[in-house]
Amino acid sequence: MCMNRIVQALHVLYLLVLIPGHASSQEHPSLTITKEGVVNIQRELGELPLFDVSLEQVKVQVDAEISSGIDVPIPKDYSGGYTHERHKLNYLTMQKAGLLYQVLDDEKYAIYVRDMLMQYADMYPTLSLHPKERSYARGKLFWQCLNDANWLVYTSQAYDCIYEWLSKKQRQDLEINLFRPFADFLSTGNPKFFNRIHNHSTWGNAAVGMIGLVMDDDELVQKALYGLPDDNIEPNAKDNDGGFIKTENGKSGFLANLDEPFSPDGYYTEGPYYQRYAMYPFLIFAQSLHNARPELGIFEFKDSVLLKSVNTLLQLTDKNGDFFALNDAQKGMSYQTSSLVTAVDLSYYYGGKDTSLLHIAEQQGKVILSDAGMEVAKGVNQNTSRPFKRKSMQFSDGANGKQGGLSVLRSKDESLTLVFKYTAQGLSHGHYDKLSYSLYEQGNEVVQDYGMVRYVNIEQKGGGNYLKENNTWAKQTIAHNTLVKDETSHFQGTYEIGSKYHSNLYFFDASNSKVQIISAVESNAYTDTQMHRTMAMIEEETYGKPFVFDILRVNSQKPAKYDLPLHYLGQPIQFGFDYQATATLEPLGTANGYQHIFLEGKGQFRKKSNATFSWMHQNHFYTLTTIVSQNEQFLLGRLGANDPQYNLRRDPVIIHRKEKTKDALFVSIMEPHGSYSPVTEMAKNAKSNIEHIEIIYNNKDYIGVQIKGKNWLDKIFILANTENDKSKKHRLTINGKLYEWVGPYTYQNKK
Amino acid sequence: MCMNRIVQALHVLYLLVLIPGHASSQEHPSLTITKEGVVNIQRELGELPLFDVSLEQVKVQVDAEISSGIDVPIPKDYSGGYTHERHKLNYLTMQKAGLLYQVLDDEKYAIYVRDMLMQYADMYPTLSLHPKERSYARGKLFWQCLNDANWLVYTSQAYDCIYEWLSKKQRQDLEINLFRPFADFLSTGNPKFFNRIHNHSTWGNAAVGMIGLVMDDDELVQKALYGLPDDNIEPNAKDNDGGFIKTENGKSGFLANLDEPFSPDGYYTEGPYYQRYAMYPFLIFAQSLHNARPELGIFEFKDSVLLKSVNTLLQLTDKNGDFFALNDAQKGMSYQTSSLVTAVDLSYYYGGKDTSLLHIAEQQGKVILSDAGMEVAKGVNQNTSRPFKRKSMQFSDGANGKQGGLSVLRSKDESLTLVFKYTAQGLSHGHYDKLSYSLYEQGNEVVQDYGMVRYVNIEQKGGGNYLKENNTWAKQTIAHNTLVKDETSHFQGTYEIGSKYHSNLYFFDASNSKVQIISAVESNAYTDTQMHRTMAMIEEETYGKPFVFDILRVNSQKPAKYDLPLHYLGQPIQFGFDYQATATLEPLGTANGYQHIFLEGKGQFRKKSNATFSWMHQNHFYTLTTIVSQNEQFLLGRLGANDPQYNLRRDPVIIHRKEKTKDALFVSIMEPHGSYSPVTEMAKNAKSNIEHIEIIYNNKDYIGVQIKGKNWLDKIFILANTENDKSKKHRLTINGKLYEWVGPYTYQNKK
Repeated sequence: MCMNRIVQALHVLYLLVLIPGHASSQEHPSLTITKEGVVNIQRELGELPLFDVSLEQVKVQVDAEISSGIDVPIPKDYSGGYTHERHKLNYLTMQKAGLLYQVLDDEKYAIYVRDMLMQYADMYPTLSLHPKERSYARGKLFWQCLNDANWLVYTSQAYDCIYEWLSKKQRQDLEINLFRPFADFLSTGNPKFFNRIHNHSTWGNAAVGMIGLVMDDDELVQKALYGLPDDNIEPNAKDNDGGFIKTENGKSGFLANLDEPFSPDGYYTEGPYYQRYAMYPFLIFAQSLHNARPELGIFEFKDSVLLKSVNTLLQLTDKNGDFFALNDAQKGMSYQTSSLVTAVDLSYYYGGKDTSLLHIAEQQGKVILSDAGMEVAKGVNQNTSRPFKRKSMQFSDGANGKQGGLSVLRSKDESLTLVFKYTAQGLSHGHYDKLSYSLYEQGNEVVQDYGMVRYVNIEQKGGGNYLKENNTWAKQTIAHNTLVKDETSHFQGTYEIGSKYHSNLYFFDASNSKVQIISAVESNAYTDTQMHRTMAMIEEETYGKPFVFDILRVNSQKPAKYDLPLHYLGQPIQFGFDYQATATLEPLGTANGYQHIFLEGKGQFRKKSNATFSWMHQNHFYTLTTIVSQNEQFLLGRLGANDPQYNLRRDPVIIHRKEKTKDALFVSIMEPHGSYSPVTEMAKNAKSNIEHIEIIYNNKDYIGVQIKGKNWLDKIFILANTENDKSKKHRLTINGKLYEWVGPYTYQNKK
Repeated sequence: MCMNRIVQALHVLYLLVLIPGHASSQEHPSLTITKEGVVNIQRELGELPLFDVSLEQVKVQVDAEISSGIDVPIPKDYSGGYTHERHKLNYLTMQKAGLLYQVLDDEKYAIYVRDMLMQYADMYPTLSLHPKERSYARGKLFWQCLNDANWLVYTSQAYDCIYEWLSKKQRQDLEINLFRPFADFLSTGNPKFFNRIHNHSTWGNAAVGMIGLVMDDDELVQKALYGLPDDNIEPNAKDNDGGFIKTENGKSGFLANLDEPFSPDGYYTEGPYYQRYAMYPFLIFAQSLHNARPELGIFEFKDSVLLKSVNTLLQLTDKNGDFFALNDAQKGMSYQTSSLVTAVDLSYYYGGKDTSLLHIAEQQGKVILSDAGMEVAKGVNQNTSRPFKRKSMQFSDGANGKQGGLSVLRSKDESLTLVFKYTAQGLSHGHYDKLSYSLYEQGNEVVQDYGMVRYVNIEQKGGGNYLKENNTWAKQTIAHNTLVKDETSHFQGTYEIGSKYHSNLYFFDASNSKVQIISAVESNAYTDTQMHRTMAMIEEETYGKPFVFDILRVNSQKPAKYDLPLHYLGQPIQFGFDYQATATLEPLGTANGYQHIFLEGKGQFRKKSNATFSWMHQNHFYTLTTIVSQNEQFLLGRLGANDPQYNLRRDPVIIHRKEKTKDALFVSIMEPHGSYSPVTEMAKNAKSNIEHIEIIYNNKDYIGVQIKGKNWLDKIFILANTENDKSKKHRLTINGKLYEWVGPYTYQNKK
């Protein structure tokens, strides 16, 4: 506290000396809205329905808050609790009120912001750290600095909007008692929070930088952009999620945060759920820099990665606009979230006016109150929007794009979507699931990624924070649709190890809409073990819907037990194999996620054959057809063991197990085929089209699989295991027949 | 077969003699569409979008069938199988093609119907009984007569439409080889099917009656209306569902079927799912009779019960238009089903043009191709539709309205709906669940009725028929939200006993929108045991949503074990009591449905207190607050034990158990309170408003419960146990304070 007082006193001096000189040099507002923008907006009011509706919505919210009065309570609660939610509502409302003051030129909004800021300025100097002690970086208004940074990012905008309306004395009061100490607390006061490559720091950097821009305080802006020069953080320090604080190259600050976690393709290494969260400070600070420090050329940084990342994020959505659940992610988060309204509007405005973004804006039904929002509203009003098209795409991971990646395969009409993951670890929010996938039909998950075990902002569930089952289940490999060796997770489920490695793309080819294919290799998840997985979305016209063909090849030095889970969602319809249902349910294992699965039944195969399993989900039918051999098993499981608090959903899983095997080959077809209507009570194509699959060739160089199905389908799929050159010619004789093709695979009629 | 041939030969004679005389006396078409109607329709073509769209839809379907060619396969499969689905598609298409011929005057449709009918006429005389043997009344085209009757109901209409276009010779061929033997097979050939009070017979009656009307064969029409005079059915014969074939009064035929199962309020005793199925033959035959035998006054029969029942059926839907799951019912069936399009259109046309039905028609998006459909389209076109309003209502059960009933309580905006059942058994589709309820919010089930265990028309699941778990689980009392005594079902789960009894209404009062209430008594479900349940939907304005207050009073001669299950849907959020989670899951019992529940945990109460349980479903929060006493238990259960085929969903249940108790009082509040958005990640009112409930008075005459909650709520609810007179004055002193009120209950501030 004593040190804090001295620092505070120095700031008083600093502000008194510096502010007068700068106050006139900087125009306000200049962050998310400009003087010129305000004039343009006022001219168009009443002309652009989407903008007018958005303005009216904001006005209704803010007017309601104004009439219910200001409350700035002493901080006390975790998220979900009153003081947390109140301070959150306060910063959201102040930011809106600031914009309303500018756009509507109605002083009551400026008064509201001022009065609330004054209450914060009165309280802030009296606060010590927040009483809740769980965070590695406790805040003052909130239990973690992250939320304090949220507060400042929004409040800076509010302050910017009423800056010129305030008296110099009022500004001095606010800056001395509130903003400057607030910015210092978040930066020099919390280097572990501020000086790292992480979405937390992005918020911290943006907060400090934005208030720095408003106050025209270049020292803060420099810290925000380039980090603290000296932070004294121990090299192995970790945060609450178990992630490292320091990165190897030691860079920090906003530009480093922009450089590091985004790949050149605009993929954010933590995954779309956190990208959507990080997007807001990235874009809002970038916009502020664009306006106030145009010379930085922030939107052009790293080949315009920021604007590119908006498109990437939109591509990482299902047909409903929900983000794919990858790594830690709460399901249901979608491009309807407010940070995506900002992202879409800014991307449209600063990124070349891609008219398909207008289509998203129409669905969002609102725009931000700024020059960018107005341009979007104008575009929509002029009917220039064209459909936003989701495509089959490949996204590299890693700052240089060389740390694996993520692929999305989509059927022509976007009805079927396969998401395949071969990324790097994804920082502290990463899960241990190399070469895993999930499958969507019409915006419904069919084969799921569990997501995270956290009920965000539902206080009754552990304060709305990550629950321990996030580590014991959601992050574990068995919770995903990928291979588990000897009941242990990839990289032993250890962040230190996982962070060192990434999978590698073998090849990706979506150029042929009939056979779209992704293939990747993982060599480090288990010691002396190589996993090579190839997934193809194959369209056979007479089958109505495409099917997914899956080859997973494992090579190990020693015999092991392999489990390949299928986390299907829905109601089992038919089992094409014998199994014994379990009368009493016991956990399948004791650790690494297995302790959470109840074993419901077990099928043991006596000879080489095909095992099939059909289920129904959201009135659609699906069938898995898998090649099984003697002594292999199918385990029927259900989540919920060792979960006394019901933190987990009771979702089903079916696990294909091969024991005492060195090299293994998992080959299967996942097939959506038909639908049911509870209104007409008609079942269409309720049965699988696939009749038989068989491995007819398998050595270190090639795998050949025969696929037989309805309508006289008799095809062969051959994969070259070690040669991914797309122009390479192959010749291979199988059962006396010569097959010739070019590139790493062929799918053709069987000879 | 020999007998059949003789009968057939006699018919040839009969037809040769009778047809010439009648052919000219009867105009065609005259069933669902009339000559005059056709003229009117043709005049309006192109003018009424809803009609034109409907016509176009039908045309597209029929044209596609015509171009893919006629197939009349030899019957072989159960429902879901090819021949079943093909014959079904055939009759649906013929009926449509017949109407298209009339409306569009395009001969290709008549040709299509004729050619298909000729193929049926060729095949029919060669058929013996359908090879699948499961039905108590096997059909010829289908595995059960019921489906054969469906065929004839539809095909009669097709024949009616092309009757005059056919040559006399063609008509004779069809009638001698197909229609007459078909009608005889369904009637005299299958008295157990034809001559009972059951939806099967309704279809049979309509089928025989309608073809009788087309052929102007009064003998068939008489059989259809009044049944077979002599059927030789043994008094105790049963059908596949375990229902009795014969009723006590021995009446049969269409009019008896219309009289018996419908109460004067238009409630159909089997429940809405089967009512919607039965509706079609009821209405389509009624319409045919209205046109061809106007002197019968069929729509005025029993105080216009048929038209009244359409309104009742529409009231028995949730906010999405899905029918409440009562007795055997497949969820998801809604007023979008085609029989409801017919019902709504006919009800509008013949029932006084209630413009709120136009609102439903708009949502259905189509009308039937007839005079009635055209009038609906006209009404919609003239914008006269007004919202269809669902109300709190009470429906009596039983032909005379004196066999208990069903009540629906709804909040003002229809957002919360309570369905409370105190009906008679509901024939063979009835479940053993007196005084049970289900709760809906915004069209989502929150506290569910399981529905039936049947995957209709999904062949892989037992041929699409009832599965054995329908008896072992769905019909059992423990599968419902009502009291189970000593782990046995009401009436010992025995149809013979259950059919004799019904519950009795104590009182219903929805006149006060703040306190809507239903109370009923059941005295026969268990020997020497009386159950009296009262449920109130109470609106406290500051609470945002109403809550449901529930008092269940049991009086028994001997001590017993009482279980009151809550079949909630969703994710548990918080348990307000201590419990022990079970490490290994075992079935809760061995019979009466208990064998299907896995015990997941158990809470034992040590003293009198309130137990609470909160959960989240479809992003809404709910809390149960229950009064518990020493030694009572809460059992946490999950469906799925002894279900090796996964015929059951893995749904959760929580059971309040009182052991060794003679007279018991279950008092609880079920409270919807708040919502969650995965997009904003905000939880609103995530916690219960109820703070404490306590029984402060309890004797044979009165029960008094204190309800304390947020915002200083302190109320008392007093129920008079034996005096349901609404004008009766009561005076009662509780804890020294005098309460005075009029009627069977009071809800007022505590003194």
